[in-house]
Amino acid sequence: MKTFTHVKDLGDLNAALREALEVKKNRFACKASGANKTVALVFFNSSLRTRLSSQKAAMNLGMNSMVLDVNQGAWRLETERGVVMDGDKTEHLLEAIPVMGAYCDIIGVRSFARFENKADDYGEKILNQFIQYSGRPVFSMESATVHPLQAFADLITIEEFKTKPRPKVVLTWAPHPKALPQAVPNSFADFMNEACVDFVITHPEGYELDPQFVRGAKVEYDQKKAFEGADFIYAKNWSAFRDDVYGQVLSKDMHWTVDAGKMSLTDSAFFMHCLPVRRNMIVTDDVIESPKSIVIPEAANREIACQVVLKRMLESLQ
Amino acid sequence: MKTFTHVKDLGDLNAALREALEVKKNRFACKASGANKTVALVFFNSSLRTRLSSQKAAMNLGMNSMVLDVNQGAWRLETERGVVMDGDKTEHLLEAIPVMGAYCDIIGVRSFARFENKADDYGEKILNQFIQYSGRPVFSMESATVHPLQAFADLITIEEFKTKPRPKVVLTWAPHPKALPQAVPNSFADFMNEACVDFVITHPEGYELDPQFVRGAKVEYDQKKAFEGADFIYAKNWSAFRDDVYGQVLSKDMHWTVDAGKMSLTDSAFFMHCLPVRRNMIVTDDVIESPKSIVIPEAANREIACQVVLKRMLESLQ
Amino acid sequence: MKTFTHVKDLGDLNAALREALEVKKNRFACKASGANKTVALVFFNSSLRTRLSSQKAAMNLGMNSMVLDVNQGAWRLETERGVVMDGDKTEHLLEAIPVMGAYCDIIGVRSFARFENKADDYGEKILNQFIQYSGRPVFSMESATVHPLQAFADLITIEEFKTKPRPKVVLTWAPHPKALPQAVPNSFADFMNEACVDFVITHPEGYELDPQFVRGAKVEYDQKKAFEGADFIYAKNWSAFRDDVYGQVLSKDMHWTVDAGKMSLTDSAFFMHCLPVRRNMIVTDDVIESPKSIVIPEAANREIACQVVLKRMLESLQ
Repeated sequence: MKTFTHVKDLGDLNAALREALEVKKNRFACKASGANKTVALVFFNSSLRTRLSSQKAAMNLGMNSMVLDVNQGAWRLETERGVVMDGDKTEHLLEAIPVMGAYCDIIGVRSFARFENKADDYGEKILNQFIQYSGRPVFSMESATVHPLQAFADLITIEEFKTKPRPKVVLTWAPHPKALPQAVPNSFADFMNEACVDFVITHPEGYELDPQFVRGAKVEYDQKKAFEGADFIYAKNWSAFRDDVYGQVLSKDMHWTVDAGKMSLTDSAFFMHCLPVRRNMIVTDDVIESPKSIVIPEAANREIACQVVLKRMLESLQ
Repeated sequence: MKTFTHVKDLGDLNAALREALEVKKNRFACKASGANKTVALVFFNSSLRTRLSSQKAAMNLGMNSMVLDVNQGAWRLETERGVVMDGDKTEHLLEAIPVMGAYCDIIGVRSFARFENKADDYGEKILNQFIQYSGRPVFSMESATVHPLQAFADLITIEEFKTKPRPKVVLTWAPHPKALPQAVPNSFADFMNEACVDFVITHPEGYELDPQFVRGAKVEYDQKKAFEGADFIYAKNWSAFRDDVYGQVLSKDMHWTVDAGKMSLTDSAFFMHCLPVRRNMIVTDDVIESPKSIVIPEAANREIACQVVLKRMLESLQ
Repeated sequence: MKTFTHVKDLGDLNAALREALEVKKNRFACKASGANKTVALVFFNSSLRTRLSSQKAAMNLGMNSMVLDVNQGAWRLETERGVVMDGDKTEHLLEAIPVMGAYCDIIGVRSFARFENKADDYGEKILNQFIQYSGRPVFSMESATVHPLQAFADLITIEEFKTKPRPKVVLTWAPHPKALPQAVPNSFADFMNEACVDFVITHPEGYELDPQFVRGAKVEYDQKKAFEGADFIYAKNWSAFRDDVYGQVLSKDMHWTVDAGKMSLTDSAFFMHCLPVRRNMIVTDDVIESPKSIVIPEAANREIACQVVLKRMLESLQ
């Protein structure tokens, strides 16, 4: 595997799922495979789960990991070509990226959507420069438009908890005080559309996601109707995708908060969220603390998802 | 060992001391015991000694360590229950803690007293949430009211330097420009009260410490009298504990600074401090640079104290 | 090797070069030599290359590394003696240094020139305290006046790319928006003066470097004349060294920017820069992106330079 940004990079999704469950059974089985190999984890943005789970996954494989926080302790990076660099950016990505590539074997990159320019965000400008110039396998640790490690972990979690061969999975928008990227819902849709699930997306009008990720998924504007008979409720806020309102908060409607009343409409569904979650905005305390909340095992699977990706990238180095 | 917060967690203190000296003689003897085990070091506050010595102790045992600075590069954490999280805190401790627990085997937590609410501080609200929700053995790397790794290192140091079976150990308050927590003097008292020493505490009136830590220790308000015949002078500033003045600086009286004149009252005592130390506030340059100053070997023993704790926690995992 | 600050610390430079090329051929050959050894990488200033390449070099040797960012997550350090520490600095270097030394076997220090006091900078006040008080081998990861890891990597790079037994190497000043230290040109001159090269320095009048580093090198104020017949162009900005203008920017003359026209005066020279580089100030996009630009292999050799230094320091521990 040379890049990991979309579900298609995993190839046969059932094979990837089986590999993940195998890895989880014995996470130290391939500890020799990472000997003398180093992964650089490059963060342009904050991280808790990704930071820890990626380091842990690398350790499980016997790899070294180096964490680089670009905005803390490293130089500020220029990302535009042709600029006279007489301002506060000391280094250009065009140098920084191959330099990072020189000291490691695999690179993970976190670089959130900036909402300054939709074309830049949806062109995955930063991530693609890493893919193009680092000379190394590159995986997204949430980039402008995708968070495939999260979606892969979500899929593993659904596989583990499902009680039907083809569960109903509902991705629901929920309110949040700030404008959030679409990376998580994009990748969740990307994965669910290829998985053995009935996939429904529900959100207020105006919050339509990018069709390249939504594809054939059913979109239902009535949240309660969407919840009926659901086996998994996956809550997430995102900002608007449409050109004229890109990156904007169109609604903070607390009627969309996931609460016990809505959960009672489901077929005793599990509650999922990628975390971090704003309690009592996205979801009420009682729902996230209920026995059906699987946000912690879901987060724990981030380690497994990352380990499969690193394992496959290590294999591709040989 | 499932938690390390107080002297009682060590059980037989002499056995713990013997184990520490054994570890110190050959710190790599148990290098196999930490294989595939990871300690997460979670810092809500600054750290030099604890940060480095804990990583070093983990390495000595063949463990991996992951450092997480909560206020740098990770999400800001909400600690109150029931809050509508519409502000600047992106994640709740109630999610963050079990998530951290999911990626590691043991957790160390640094979370200083905040002086906003005495009940919260003395209830060790943050630390206890880690103990309750992480599902992992947890040790304090200085929490609101205790710093047991420091006190254990202090005890090891006294054991190494003492020239009498039962030395006189004096904990003395000293001036400082800012309000400091009581964690260090609390734990020092906690340990000294169980150790084979004559323990005396001296401080200006109003600086009385929590009786649960002071216990039967002698409190002497006349610093010079306290110093007479002392074998170890342990200097430290702390703010007021009493309810009506909790967390306040009641005095910056430079007459309490430890200087050569006062040291001459002792039985050629060793000078100790947990560091970081404000020179010429807590202690004069000449005393801290004198041959009787053992602040550096004391700091070096932080590695040993932490290694014993990690070693015992590793044993408890099996 | 007990310190690494100047070219003379390497002893026989040809032997050091041979060792570097040997290390590069098989960087994991000495992986057993670093077992149970730890290097502390102490950063008072930002770093990308040094941070990653030093960690990577340590890993190659089987060593542990601990990164400490002094201004993030650790205590702010007082560097002056005799101060009453009643301000915002919580710890004195005189304690912090031996404490760091206590937890590791080797120390790397990054501490840039501060331009507050030339005598302090050129006295290498911070670095020398580490050498004096840490009790450990110490190497500069760019200190106030030297950057020997960079210069050693530069020399290795020249050795690899040269097509003549004695190439002409030109160090040229180039414009930059801010005042930069002289550490890189100082060490480059220090190394080139001992290497098998014809060494020329070119800069505007007023930018003369410290004679202890310039030594017998030819100084040519006409940049174009200097470039004639050059095999390597090494561009770098620095601020003034002269007492009356120390640390000042005397010129931002963009006529000194390295561009294709000037490169055409050379004998098809390679372009070098230590990075980070300000594009279109120091060098134009087309030159740094040309096939003759070797800034990335140059940066990659930072790992090799550091590995030789760590390897020799490890040998000195035995």
